Amino acid sequence: MMNQREKHDRMANAIRFLSMDAVEKANSGHPGLPMGAADMATVLYTRFMKHDPKNPAWPDRDRFVLSAGHGSMLLYSLLYLTGYEDITIDEIKHFRQLGSRTAGHPEYGHAAGIETTTGPLGQGLANSVGMALAERILNARFGDALVDHYTYVIAGDGCLMEGISQEAISLAGHLQLSKLIVLWDDNNISIDGPVSLADSTDQLERFDASGWNTMRCDGHDPDAIADAIELAHHSDRPTLIACKTTIGFGAPTKAGTNKAHGSPLGADEIAATRKALGWTAPAFEVPSDILDAWRLSGLNAGKKRKEWEQRLAAAESEIRTEFERRMRGELPGGLDGAIAEYKQKLASDRPKVATRKSSEMALEVINAVAPETIGGSADLTGSNNTRTSQTKPISAGDYGERYVHYGIREHGMAAAMNGMALHGGVIPYSGTFLVFSDYARPAMRLASLMGIRSIFVMTHDSIGLGEDGPTHQPVEQLAALRAIPNHTVFRPADATEVAECWQLALESAKTPSTIALTRQNLSAVRTEFVEENLCAYGAYELATANGDAEVTIFASGSEVEIALAARTQLQAHGHPTRVVSVPAFELFEKQSDDYKAAIIGGAPVKIAIEAAIRLGWDRFIGLDGIFIGMTGFGASGPIEQIYPHFGITADATVKAAEAALHKKSH
Amino acid sequence: MMNQREKHDRMANAIRFLSMDAVEKANSGHPGLPMGAADMATVLYTRFMKHDPKNPAWPDRDRFVLSAGHGSMLLYSLLYLTGYEDITIDEIKHFRQLGSRTAGHPEYGHAAGIETTTGPLGQGLANSVGMALAERILNARFGDALVDHYTYVIAGDGCLMEGISQEAISLAGHLQLSKLIVLWDDNNISIDGPVSLADSTDQLERFDASGWNTMRCDGHDPDAIADAIELAHHSDRPTLIACKTTIGFGAPTKAGTNKAHGSPLGADEIAATRKALGWTAPAFEVPSDILDAWRLSGLNAGKKRKEWEQRLAAAESEIRTEFERRMRGELPGGLDGAIAEYKQKLASDRPKVATRKSSEMALEVINAVAPETIGGSADLTGSNNTRTSQTKPISAGDYGERYVHYGIREHGMAAAMNGMALHGGVIPYSGTFLVFSDYARPAMRLASLMGIRSIFVMTHDSIGLGEDGPTHQPVEQLAALRAIPNHTVFRPADATEVAECWQLALESAKTPSTIALTRQNLSAVRTEFVEENLCAYGAYELATANGDAEVTIFASGSEVEIALAARTQLQAHGHPTRVVSVPAFELFEKQSDDYKAAIIGGAPVKIAIEAAIRLGWDRFIGLDGIFIGMTGFGASGPIEQIYPHFGITADATVKAAEAALHKKSH
Repeated sequence: MMNQREKHDRMANAIRFLSMDAVEKANSGHPGLPMGAADMATVLYTRFMKHDPKNPAWPDRDRFVLSAGHGSMLLYSLLYLTGYEDITIDEIKHFRQLGSRTAGHPEYGHAAGIETTTGPLGQGLANSVGMALAERILNARFGDALVDHYTYVIAGDGCLMEGISQEAISLAGHLQLSKLIVLWDDNNISIDGPVSLADSTDQLERFDASGWNTMRCDGHDPDAIADAIELAHHSDRPTLIACKTTIGFGAPTKAGTNKAHGSPLGADEIAATRKALGWTAPAFEVPSDILDAWRLSGLNAGKKRKEWEQRLAAAESEIRTEFERRMRGELPGGLDGAIAEYKQKLASDRPKVATRKSSEMALEVINAVAPETIGGSADLTGSNNTRTSQTKPISAGDYGERYVHYGIREHGMAAAMNGMALHGGVIPYSGTFLVFSDYARPAMRLASLMGIRSIFVMTHDSIGLGEDGPTHQPVEQLAALRAIPNHTVFRPADATEVAECWQLALESAKTPSTIALTRQNLSAVRTEFVEENLCAYGAYELATANGDAEVTIFASGSEVEIALAARTQLQAHGHPTRVVSVPAFELFEKQSDDYKAAIIGGAPVKIAIEAAIRLGWDRFIGLDGIFIGMTGFGASGPIEQIYPHFGITADATVKAAEAALHKKSH
Repeated sequence: MMNQREKHDRMANAIRFLSMDAVEKANSGHPGLPMGAADMATVLYTRFMKHDPKNPAWPDRDRFVLSAGHGSMLLYSLLYLTGYEDITIDEIKHFRQLGSRTAGHPEYGHAAGIETTTGPLGQGLANSVGMALAERILNARFGDALVDHYTYVIAGDGCLMEGISQEAISLAGHLQLSKLIVLWDDNNISIDGPVSLADSTDQLERFDASGWNTMRCDGHDPDAIADAIELAHHSDRPTLIACKTTIGFGAPTKAGTNKAHGSPLGADEIAATRKALGWTAPAFEVPSDILDAWRLSGLNAGKKRKEWEQRLAAAESEIRTEFERRMRGELPGGLDGAIAEYKQKLASDRPKVATRKSSEMALEVINAVAPETIGGSADLTGSNNTRTSQTKPISAGDYGERYVHYGIREHGMAAAMNGMALHGGVIPYSGTFLVFSDYARPAMRLASLMGIRSIFVMTHDSIGLGEDGPTHQPVEQLAALRAIPNHTVFRPADATEVAECWQLALESAKTPSTIALTRQNLSAVRTEFVEENLCAYGAYELATANGDAEVTIFASGSEVEIALAARTQLQAHGHPTRVVSVPAFELFEKQSDDYKAAIIGGAPVKIAIEAAIRLGWDRFIGLDGIFIGMTGFGASGPIEQIYPHFGITADATVKAAEAALHKKSH
């Protein structure tokens, strides 16, 4: 009979050998972290994790985030060993191969048990803050019986060096997210060599300064790790446990060095590791007693799910229905009707307001019907107009509200929103200035890659913001965001389009959205009530030509009213002109070829207007089309002067159109 | 006679009234910070700053960075008051107006004394780390007599909340940049309200954890501020001085609240502030005794420059010549010859190496001739190949070397590089993976806006990196970087193009560069020695068609060899085909219309190949052109399978070309 320690060691070694053998077979990957963190992970999964490998989507499971995503084999090993069906031994043998679930870094959606896509460092840690926050929000709504779980993270030195980690930990500390527990794989090694090459931070002091509970332990002593996690469970603050580990633990010559980090150990070193750790099983074979012990831990953990199912069954039917709807990510039934009614009102009111303001108006309607929306802003609440009457600030200990003051932390905000969306039960939306989407971009990319419903509200979306000048005026951000695959960039032109874009963003469960909104007031361009969501086409004819169109003007957002004004002039000059509003390039591309051809049309002169760079607009106007927009950075000055200064006016459009018509007719 | 304190108060009040009056007149801007920080700034500029308003470019001046750039009127006031010619009272009256030097946020290049463009929060703080590092590097080379100055920063709560601040302070602490002194305008207020809405960080503890010297003082007590700065001068670590201030100091009803932050105070509040502070002068008038006192402080400060000029004159002529060349930003005379010689060698060697490797080879040549290059990497030294035999690591106290281990801090790295470039005397280049340009993007944008020579080395530039998978495979980053105005994105195809691109990047003093490089080996595509730098054209004909071209293939980087292989096949099938290498879109756009038309040519079928998204390539191939590239995110797998998986092969190119030719001929 093995004693407990021997059993632990062999269970942890199973992770180590699966990891080093998979990396060796792939001839690519990172053995160092799984080998170093195997003890922590074994303690966590065998003694603490509330999960059910047979029902991995169970809403009240503990969340585990491998923030140091390069150590993916640690996660794949855990999922295989505890009995997740998606990760078979065959998948592990096909680590890093095309089409396998076991990608180089954990990819959300590839297999159950992968709670988020990690790899870009620091993201997982920031996701976990969102998960832990979502847990508290749902707990406040649905009670301990239905929602009461931990979020565990394994983070490496790289995660802690990235700036996003500071945004994440200061937010988590501020909100006292005590069910968030971070195990730091404190191995003193980064890719270039010892961490001391580049960093001297006292991490415990740093986390302490952010309001965390901090501890140290020997990351290879299972009881010490367990004691630390146990203590963390009793903290009223988030906890960092610095687990001192040896990277590549067990590898005789490479352990403790950067040689163990990111490449196969090699056959000799692996053989020597087998000898050193007394592991006789061949590659990809886990001795049956050890595999049994792992599977049993998975089965035992699953029992808690049955208890939870009973509690769910016993819950009031209204509560249960609402909980289940929200966890499925289904929108409330009343939403469409509320938006239709609101659109009807807009058609008669025709408000002349900034789209950031009409976004607030739309949210006022949405938030009243959809209790799952959680708003926020990176300290620009009054500018982003993301707070409505229904959303009061969440604060430490008071998680029953619906608004997050994320602080001046755009990147951490976006990543936390991703964590909330991944957790489920809430739909996060939050704002900053469009130009600062650059700060949030790595997290926005991951939202797109994962295919989750994070909604980014980006106001002050052009030079139209005026005096703040070029540091605050986006010119390339629309193009740069449109460049991200599986990301819809909405740029609505008036209050009606705003309402439609919000509806589309909410309905888009597998594609994150950016909604770009103006600071400046805009006239209503949609003056008739149309029940159909016209923005769903991505581009649609807003105004027809009074005859065979000589000119088509495409525009988005604040420039649509310029397009309409130019049309009026051109038609007065005898040039039939149509205007196409283009609220979302990505949705237009999804339309039928016939629809697209009809929208682009055959007018001899095609013009696009957007107060941003041309990149991407050739799709509509062709290479010989006329673009009225920006060619460089903006300038500081009042909006009334800025638009003319850069030649973005109806007059300039008319002039360019007539010059082109003149040229064509000669 | 005023006593010293009264004099200080009136001098500080001059800043306050200039600021509030300018904001009022502009009807836009941020009075709160200048009013709150006026005391710190007055102490700094009247008692410590080594600067010369009459010779503002003096290399050994202290650098002052207003990281909280929204408080721009503080800086403009200081520059006007101390006598910088660029900032007249007329400029201050035209605050935030089109064409004035006094933009909403301080814009580098608009006026002497603006050391960097700030506004996006945290950037200035990170710039200052680069400035302080450049100072130490030059000090190690040129000695105390020529280089020995401080870098002072005023940072706000927002700067400290942004993640980039953590990257900056941990790097500064690690490198013990003791001549960096940060005055934190600790006013407890952010835009949404009290900082406590979103943050509970103990900032002093946090900075202490990063190896800083930390102090607190009353930010309205001039002697306390002076004592703290004095103490900071004797620290062996960088210093944070938390100056407790009242935002909008002096404004009777708005001081200490977010109402003072970002909008005009209004006529009534300004009148009441005049009364409260005993200021009787009308708007934009500074009482002559106060203006004299300010101007005198500027004149006195300037005396140190004369002493420095004497030391420079007394320096060895070789040292002086080298120092002056480097501070002018002129490249060494031998560089062109060294690169030409190296290109000659390449034409005969034709190495088949990754472009990241040939970048190292080029740097080996460059670094031997140009002692001002300072290399680095965000913990990917062995992957980015940015370290050469000449560049050994810089460490705390040992600043005579030329390589910076920036740590896993892409954003802080890029911003520190900007600070180094702004300081002058060094040319910073440093690397990470191209996909992580997203992390560094806000700083890369500012490099472009400022027009400075930061060179970003971005390796692993496509799905060609293989197994690490979609989190690490850039697909939209090339397009997104090309979208930034005044930023050249180089994507060289072989060792010769790499050498040429490096030469162009170094010569480009007013435009930052990104050099995108492969992980995988590439064949030499340039097999003949050409002295001329062909990459300077941005796009050039690499291979002619054997007859009237039926097909033109445009490609960049690693896809050029695919284009050449496709050309061979197409010509064998009787289809004359030319290949255009496109190492830099931006440089192509600068060529004459004739050149551009000739390069694009009239071949009936135009194809572009780039292992990235299509966005931007329509410029070359037109809307009906064929694009061989990516339409979504990548996948984890070996490169040999990844390229065929996504259809980026010579065969696919040939097939598409022939199908198009077939269609055209029918």
